[in-house]
Amino acid sequence: MKVAIIGYGNIGKAVEQAVLAAPDMVLSGVYHHNDNLSRIKADVAILCVPTREVPEYAQLCIKKGLVTVDSFDIHSRIADVRKDLGVLDVENKTVSVIAAGWDPGSDSVIRTLLQAIAPQGITYTNFGPGRSMGHSVAAKSIEGVKDALSMTIPLGTGVHRRMVYIELEQGADLKRIERTLLKDDYFKNDETHIIVVPSVAALNNVAHGVNLVRSGVSGTTHNQRFEFNMTINNPALTGQVMVACARAAFRMKEQGRFGAFTMIELAPIDLLPGDPEQIIKELV
Amino acid sequence: MKVAIIGYGNIGKAVEQAVLAAPDMVLSGVYHHNDNLSRIKADVAILCVPTREVPEYAQLCIKKGLVTVDSFDIHSRIADVRKDLGVLDVENKTVSVIAAGWDPGSDSVIRTLLQAIAPQGITYTNFGPGRSMGHSVAAKSIEGVKDALSMTIPLGTGVHRRMVYIELEQGADLKRIERTLLKDDYFKNDETHIIVVPSVAALNNVAHGVNLVRSGVSGTTHNQRFEFNMTINNPALTGQVMVACARAAFRMKEQGRFGAFTMIELAPIDLLPGDPEQIIKELV
Repeated sequence: MKVAIIGYGNIGKAVEQAVLAAPDMVLSGVYHHNDNLSRIKADVAILCVPTREVPEYAQLCIKKGLVTVDSFDIHSRIADVRKDLGVLDVENKTVSVIAAGWDPGSDSVIRTLLQAIAPQGITYTNFGPGRSMGHSVAAKSIEGVKDALSMTIPLGTGVHRRMVYIELEQGADLKRIERTLLKDDYFKNDETHIIVVPSVAALNNVAHGVNLVRSGVSGTTHNQRFEFNMTINNPALTGQVMVACARAAFRMKEQGRFGAFTMIELAPIDLLPGDPEQIIKELV
Repeated sequence: MKVAIIGYGNIGKAVEQAVLAAPDMVLSGVYHHNDNLSRIKADVAILCVPTREVPEYAQLCIKKGLVTVDSFDIHSRIADVRKDLGVLDVENKTVSVIAAGWDPGSDSVIRTLLQAIAPQGITYTNFGPGRSMGHSVAAKSIEGVKDALSMTIPLGTGVHRRMVYIELEQGADLKRIERTLLKDDYFKNDETHIIVVPSVAALNNVAHGVNLVRSGVSGTTHNQRFEFNMTINNPALTGQVMVACARAAFRMKEQGRFGAFTMIELAPIDLLPGDPEQIIKELV
């Protein structure tokens, strides 16, 4: 399976490492964000461009008949992107796997499985401690903020605290920055603490985590309790998930099952290389 | 979807509760273990007979064109049962889901997902505390043992202690029972404690649990850590898993994807009732 990587930031670099470690893949090329894509020679394009640009790049690649994988992560738009790309995939006889990261992504698989085996109940997904890109960018965009890091801290039952570390420009008005930040849509509904530091770069760290909890009912039996925890390097996990999904997408294309799919629509066995019978012997 | 239940022990009763709670299923009948199955009118047969009898009952049902679901749990024979039933399923244009419980079953899905997202590493599955049926039956079969309960206690890294509670027959030779039990294949490799109690029935409890741990490598990044825990009512969870798999199997049959499959070969979304787009909006 020949794999092209489009976009070469944190995620693109992590995907490169996972492709090179995969026994069934060859890296055919790394394309930068603004490169001309007409020269791509690959079976699969793994899209590591900024999330808002994913649909545009996916369409370009699908029209060339490539399998695409992305980690599009705007939860509210996933169903629409799936529908739009799916039409193109069927027209071009190919497959896209979208929203293939850890959340959305592998966490979605856990949530779906738990919903199936204890259908009535509540699942709480608690994120962190770890950096939120969206919140960090929002904080950094405020006038007078030189750099910002917003850490997501899980308080349980899906409630999160925001710890915002900011580095100030010379002569910045801290009181005004605080007022602006606390009114911002990203922060106004959460407990938010602002801490001025001499260097945000000195704090940066790609560690992240999840604590996903469900208490539910199987049949008529209550008090079925489930918990999934992980502490991970964020881009490394995202990159590896995308590579596993590239494998599944390629198999689905070979089977003529064209369309755009989220991870909960893939059979987990297709994420793995190797002989299915051997995998069943080892993992079932 | 019309569902028949074959076998009406702990699991059969739990399946009945889950079928009655399912919005998309009708219970067409409950058949006892030795009933004549020729009169079954259903789309799906959920097999709740003892595990060793599963292949025989599955074959009977498949030959009638029924979808079958079982929780066959002899790990070493799953691949063979899958192969044998798969041939029959294709001949009869139907679908079987085998080994559909929690281990094998939903735990297998978690193991497969974690293997895919951190391909290098070790997964430990720690069971219990909870009753092991196989060990309990082995202990009960020893001469002089009136009743027995073998509890599986997790010691971590996949190592387990056996706590065996036995109720003696009048005049039984405890020393001989202890020697026999500790030499038995089920017990000889594990730390085993034998405790004589006045009533095993007074101790029985269908609670069980799992602690599944993986430390692995994503790409070239080590120290990716994952943990899945559950504490559950054992037959209730098994019954609910079988019902969810019945739904997935029925969909695969409608799509013409005939054969025998383990849970890691099913798309998790197919375990759930309802509109796929709505499920994606809620769970991805």
